[in-house]
Amino acid sequence: MTEAATMILFGATGDLAKRKLFPALYSLFQENQLPQQFAVVGVGRRTLSREAFQTHVKSSIESFARYSVNEKWPDFISRFYYVSLDIQELGDYQTLLHTIKTVEHDYSIPQNRLFYLAIAPELFEPVTFHLQQSGILRQRGWKRVVIEKPFGHDLPSAEALNKEISQVFTEEEIYRIDHYLGKEMVQNIEVIRFANTLFEPVWNNQYISNVQITSSEVVGVEGRAGYYDQAGALRDMVQNHMLQMMTMVAMEPPSRLKPEAVRDEKVKVLRSIRRLHQADEIARHVVRGQYVAGEINGEVMKGYREEEKVNPNSQTETFVALKFHIDNFRWAGVPFYIRTGKRLAKKATEVIIQFKQLPPLYFNQSGQLDPNVLVIRIYPENGLHLKLNLRQPDNMDKIAPVSMSFTQNGSPGFHSPEAYERLVKDCIEGNSTYFTRWDEVALAWKIVDPIVQAFETGEVPLYTYKAGSWGPAEADQLVAQEGLKWWPVLGQ
Amino acid sequence: MTEAATMILFGATGDLAKRKLFPALYSLFQENQLPQQFAVVGVGRRTLSREAFQTHVKSSIESFARYSVNEKWPDFISRFYYVSLDIQELGDYQTLLHTIKTVEHDYSIPQNRLFYLAIAPELFEPVTFHLQQSGILRQRGWKRVVIEKPFGHDLPSAEALNKEISQVFTEEEIYRIDHYLGKEMVQNIEVIRFANTLFEPVWNNQYISNVQITSSEVVGVEGRAGYYDQAGALRDMVQNHMLQMMTMVAMEPPSRLKPEAVRDEKVKVLRSIRRLHQADEIARHVVRGQYVAGEINGEVMKGYREEEKVNPNSQTETFVALKFHIDNFRWAGVPFYIRTGKRLAKKATEVIIQFKQLPPLYFNQSGQLDPNVLVIRIYPENGLHLKLNLRQPDNMDKIAPVSMSFTQNGSPGFHSPEAYERLVKDCIEGNSTYFTRWDEVALAWKIVDPIVQAFETGEVPLYTYKAGSWGPAEADQLVAQEGLKWWPVLGQ
Repeated sequence: MTEAATMILFGATGDLAKRKLFPALYSLFQENQLPQQFAVVGVGRRTLSREAFQTHVKSSIESFARYSVNEKWPDFISRFYYVSLDIQELGDYQTLLHTIKTVEHDYSIPQNRLFYLAIAPELFEPVTFHLQQSGILRQRGWKRVVIEKPFGHDLPSAEALNKEISQVFTEEEIYRIDHYLGKEMVQNIEVIRFANTLFEPVWNNQYISNVQITSSEVVGVEGRAGYYDQAGALRDMVQNHMLQMMTMVAMEPPSRLKPEAVRDEKVKVLRSIRRLHQADEIARHVVRGQYVAGEINGEVMKGYREEEKVNPNSQTETFVALKFHIDNFRWAGVPFYIRTGKRLAKKATEVIIQFKQLPPLYFNQSGQLDPNVLVIRIYPENGLHLKLNLRQPDNMDKIAPVSMSFTQNGSPGFHSPEAYERLVKDCIEGNSTYFTRWDEVALAWKIVDPIVQAFETGEVPLYTYKAGSWGPAEADQLVAQEGLKWWPVLGQ
Repeated sequence: MTEAATMILFGATGDLAKRKLFPALYSLFQENQLPQQFAVVGVGRRTLSREAFQTHVKSSIESFARYSVNEKWPDFISRFYYVSLDIQELGDYQTLLHTIKTVEHDYSIPQNRLFYLAIAPELFEPVTFHLQQSGILRQRGWKRVVIEKPFGHDLPSAEALNKEISQVFTEEEIYRIDHYLGKEMVQNIEVIRFANTLFEPVWNNQYISNVQITSSEVVGVEGRAGYYDQAGALRDMVQNHMLQMMTMVAMEPPSRLKPEAVRDEKVKVLRSIRRLHQADEIARHVVRGQYVAGEINGEVMKGYREEEKVNPNSQTETFVALKFHIDNFRWAGVPFYIRTGKRLAKKATEVIIQFKQLPPLYFNQSGQLDPNVLVIRIYPENGLHLKLNLRQPDNMDKIAPVSMSFTQNGSPGFHSPEAYERLVKDCIEGNSTYFTRWDEVALAWKIVDPIVQAFETGEVPLYTYKAGSWGPAEADQLVAQEGLKWWPVLGQ
């Protein structure tokens, strides 16, 4: 399956490489999931000897990897090369080409080249241009490019970016990373739905009342304030991760479980999401918030506007809650609630499926029974949680909810592989199922752009919430309007 | 709800009273579930003073009750009276009537009389006859009679017994105990089905492959050999408990959750069970076995025929496995397997719902996925177990079964009430939902009688199985014929 390949990693001395990519490669190597013939050419602005680079990789593994430096280490690290490169300097790309060719020769790798751009988006264009100019892309095998988010900051910028990359890579060669799609339980959404007789028949508006997707963070903006204050929660989380999870929950069964068939179905969901255009309509469906000072676990946290590098008059949202509708036969009438923010009470990612109330019969004559609820736990646990009804043993006339859970990381000594391990493996293998196709990106911007605009013109109020809370009270109101509530994340 | 009443307990010095009924009454009393005005008149052959009887009750509570003798004890025991009675002696019933009237006067109980016949079935007729003759049944309030199993040993004997009782009590006044119907998780079957949106829609032959009901015992015949060697597993377990559980799983939703509406639906199931008449047909659907010597937990157990009071040439079955079909729209094509026996490997009662295999799509292209399985755990745990499919975290291309469980008795310090507590409470309150109506009894005998006859004529082979096994290999074959297997009880 896995063909011999060379990974050319731009941003090799950067943070993502250190924290995620080297550890992911090392785990894959430990588990024999990399091709036999495989090498990495690190590319960075800094001048570094190959040995210094290898030392850098080693310190990454020692700090962040699931596997320790062991007897496989020498084989692993011997595959790492380094080229120092000025992104604007064509001549440096010739050096890079030379190194790639040497590596390919030494490892008998048939010019399959995977370019991983772990660099700022404004550098994509010069890099792809010079890759082209230098002849590096005149390879005999395949070429692929992996791109990290953000992919634009609105539809026009995303289109411009895509146009640049498309001059050099075809859509099939472009792997847009959304690391949420690499998460174990996000990849399990389709398994829950399509590999379990119990769930497939009830996965529609006849049985499901509403869907709640929460991704909450305890951290504030940390070192990313410069970016974040320009982006906000909607662009940073909703346009990509949250909408992606929503499409996984909502998509129709694809004709096959192949990348294009799956992505076709996700695109159909994005097309069917009811667009919000009018400001008043947006204000009824979207609640935005910004945190003010508060306490988390007894620690006082300052407000967003007091954070370093944040504009003291910033109107940027650090929290957003939205109500979406999907206008198709499966989901008509089922609200999809999305909620994400920083400095919330707990860090968690969960998809909660609330089933419809039973008719007012039998045990439910006054409609007081709790609904069945399925929780897909994505973070911090990988697992499932199911809320059912049974008799209360000490008072059998009463029906009360009970809980069943399954936690994947419950097995002793077992740590689930990281999202990046799966995604790196997938792009080496040429499996683009869990990467975002251009039409998905474009449609997601089309959904998000009008909301961003309404934010910017101030037509949607910016509420405040205390650090350590669950966002502004108006977010609860959004759900309460329909007689619902946000199910508490991390268990009942 | 609970009206004042006097319980007249025949067999007051017997085993059932000591082990189950006194403890049940005491638990109900502790939990304020008995009427304020309530008394018990114990009736037995032995001559006992009231004080001696109260001492006897106390020793029962001390040995078998969930609650210890505490500050409520004096109030509880002061309600106990005793009358010594020769069942054939009308005069003794006059004494009984006198005591009942005294009690009713002292406790201001309006002649609501509950007769609990914890005595051998051959005594039912003389007791009811003399109750009638003595004028005890000319009460101004209500009267009810509670009858323990067995209710006949075939249809004619059950009809005769019913005729006798019916001369004195109407069907509505007769409470035929099947203590399995008092078990917490048996009473939860209708809650699982009708109080959970997840299960109601899939509870039919479109989604369910087969149902397996197992009730296994580790004990042999113990002190009951005289009765058991005449009865066998089919009459002792299947005619009543096993068929009752099956009707709870299979019944249509009743018009209301009222006793007659529920029992009407259970009768409809019994009517729809395909009758087995021809010997060869019976032999294809029924496997009977008798245990021979073997080992359980390292202890050597003798064979059935070596047991005390068992005929050394006994042809009685100590194990039976059956395949039933329910010929209605909901269940056409879904086999219901029933299995029960003595000296099996473990003591357990479980209802296992195996869902249908998914179509050969996606993750199930070679049909190798495990089906979803719902286990209703009746004994020793009270709980639910659900087997689902998820990706294997260390090899995400593989789908593997995972388990979720809920155990009611998991809460620390909590002991579920006993079946008899619920049933005693129900008959005091006049709720006959969990008691067997005459037409249920009659239909169950109609189903079982032809099988018993085929056993007696030897047309169905009597296989042997080792004590400590799961019955004869032929029982596995019964299920394997359809490409199925018995799911192991007590967890996978």
